[in-house]
Amino acid sequence: MPNLKVSVIGSGNWGSAIAKIVAENAAENSDIFESDVRMWVFEELVAGQKLTDIINSQHENVKYLPGIKLPSNVVAVPDLLAAVQDADLLVFNVPHQFLPRICSTLKGNVPSTVRAVSCIKGVEVNGDGITIIANYISNELGIYCGALSGANLAPEVAEEKYSETTIAYKVPDPTDVIDAKIIRTLFHRSYFHVNVVDDVAGVSLCGALKNIVALASGFVDGMEWGDNAKAAIIRRGLLEMTKFGREFFPESNASTFTEESCGVADVITSCSGGRNHKLGAALIKTRRPIFELEAELLKGQKAQGVTTAQEVYEFLDRRGKSREFPLFTAVHGIIFEGLDSYALPRILEEIEQKL
Amino acid sequence: MPNLKVSVIGSGNWGSAIAKIVAENAAENSDIFESDVRMWVFEELVAGQKLTDIINSQHENVKYLPGIKLPSNVVAVPDLLAAVQDADLLVFNVPHQFLPRICSTLKGNVPSTVRAVSCIKGVEVNGDGITIIANYISNELGIYCGALSGANLAPEVAEEKYSETTIAYKVPDPTDVIDAKIIRTLFHRSYFHVNVVDDVAGVSLCGALKNIVALASGFVDGMEWGDNAKAAIIRRGLLEMTKFGREFFPESNASTFTEESCGVADVITSCSGGRNHKLGAALIKTRRPIFELEAELLKGQKAQGVTTAQEVYEFLDRRGKSREFPLFTAVHGIIFEGLDSYALPRILEEIEQKL
Repeated sequence: MPNLKVSVIGSGNWGSAIAKIVAENAAENSDIFESDVRMWVFEELVAGQKLTDIINSQHENVKYLPGIKLPSNVVAVPDLLAAVQDADLLVFNVPHQFLPRICSTLKGNVPSTVRAVSCIKGVEVNGDGITIIANYISNELGIYCGALSGANLAPEVAEEKYSETTIAYKVPDPTDVIDAKIIRTLFHRSYFHVNVVDDVAGVSLCGALKNIVALASGFVDGMEWGDNAKAAIIRRGLLEMTKFGREFFPESNASTFTEESCGVADVITSCSGGRNHKLGAALIKTRRPIFELEAELLKGQKAQGVTTAQEVYEFLDRRGKSREFPLFTAVHGIIFEGLDSYALPRILEEIEQKL
Repeated sequence: MPNLKVSVIGSGNWGSAIAKIVAENAAENSDIFESDVRMWVFEELVAGQKLTDIINSQHENVKYLPGIKLPSNVVAVPDLLAAVQDADLLVFNVPHQFLPRICSTLKGNVPSTVRAVSCIKGVEVNGDGITIIANYISNELGIYCGALSGANLAPEVAEEKYSETTIAYKVPDPTDVIDAKIIRTLFHRSYFHVNVVDDVAGVSLCGALKNIVALASGFVDGMEWGDNAKAAIIRRGLLEMTKFGREFFPESNASTFTEESCGVADVITSCSGGRNHKLGAALIKTRRPIFELEAELLKGQKAQGVTTAQEVYEFLDRRGKSREFPLFTAVHGIIFEGLDSYALPRILEEIEQKL
């Protein structure tokens, strides 16, 4: 009986939705998991009460996932080190920008035999290179870390509406108890279908690059170009994502992009709605500065795609590769260089001809 | 100077939109094509005037593509044999059901050196086998026929909104003047981007099978399951389309389904709107008999997906393969056998486990 202890680090809407799933499965699979799942909560007061106390007594994250009952075996813990003590598996699910501080607290306090899955979408890009979030966690803590990404709008998952996800997990040591089957058992629900692959780079790139495509699909809707054009841009975007993966992460698989939930399905979802799509459409309709629009439309939240578009462009440009990624390059140009979005078909065509 | 003569057979909204494109390109490429492009029009009276006369004098198909100016080198011809006389390339673009009669008129009147492209989407399925429309034309007339299919809602193409398409054309004889480059020159416009591949079976299957997926996406919208579920169903559908192609037409390429406009892009467009999607959603919401709903909602038009779902199911069932295509089989079950659409995730999961 392995009796694996699982801790979820993070308690936003996605963190809480994932804690709910993991706790449901831990309770139903007592031959594998310890029933209690600890969830690290950044402590705050809600109407004078500690959020952890509310979660542990009312079994609801009233602040970040209101209206959804959490299983009673989700145990909110305000102290990060207490939350991970003796854990066998860590599930990371915090906003991107909090990760460095969390890792520096955990560093030296997590044995190398611990395993992790990152639900934090994306990658860190700078001119010098690209860091996959899961690899950042691995490097900081000296533990193996896989990645979870898919067409997973958190509120729909929390309401148990049917969806699928992709988990990249490649068993790092053949003697590990935690294998792909156990990973699937921990995350798979009748309403949340899991496919486990071994392509951490591909799954992570999908989660970042799709936001550039979502901006482009927003441009198309802003120009009112219709369904054909939108499908064309999604298709082109998906192919550029695949090419980017194959070129800079040769260990990634094209099928992760074109066949998995984290690829084609998440691109479709992100191009139907969501922050980046909304911002892209507003940019074309208003022609106002992007950061002004972002602040106004998203009320303080960030549209990850704007940063990603800029970082990816700089990364490509330094390598003399920007012209090989015409859609990514055009999205950057439209946002930051006043490029006319109506020129998109011509730009794509000119570059097609030269390749 | 080859001076190739092109005739378009058909003048519905899609036929007229394609005639417009072909005529624009014929006029601009006088080194390759004869400028006049004949369009066979099934003659009828519109407000007492012959439709061919209206098209040739007003340069507008007032009945089937009103509001769109056709180039003056589109010449409407009411007699089918006159329309194809001395043609080098035929572009077929008529409703499916008219094809046998057209082919029987043309039989024996078209030299074997003539080449053709079929814009008629789809395949003929019956228990015994599947006939690709392009191959049917080939067999009936003894000429080579390629296929054109893509995310191409006709009104948007006619309005010159940006879109892409896929043409399957494999030069049948190395001495042919008409090669992939000439095919591209005839169809490619700045607003209609063409990719030429050589997979006639794959392109044709996409055009038929996507309608089954569109029905399924309609079910998801009818149940109000949200964006995650819809993307999941599109992804599953695309993979079943690919599997169907690879299994029954081993000469087809997976990339035609997952990467080309006729595949992933057309599935996305068909799942955003269109007849099959609309009918699928209405079926779930009303639980009324499908043919009653179809007659009422589509005012006499057919949702091709219903027939295709039935034919494909029978085809699979006779081969003992229906369980390997759980989504296609479930769509058939939901339409014809009272299967509960809410069971979709469970059905997909049960079958996943067994494979």
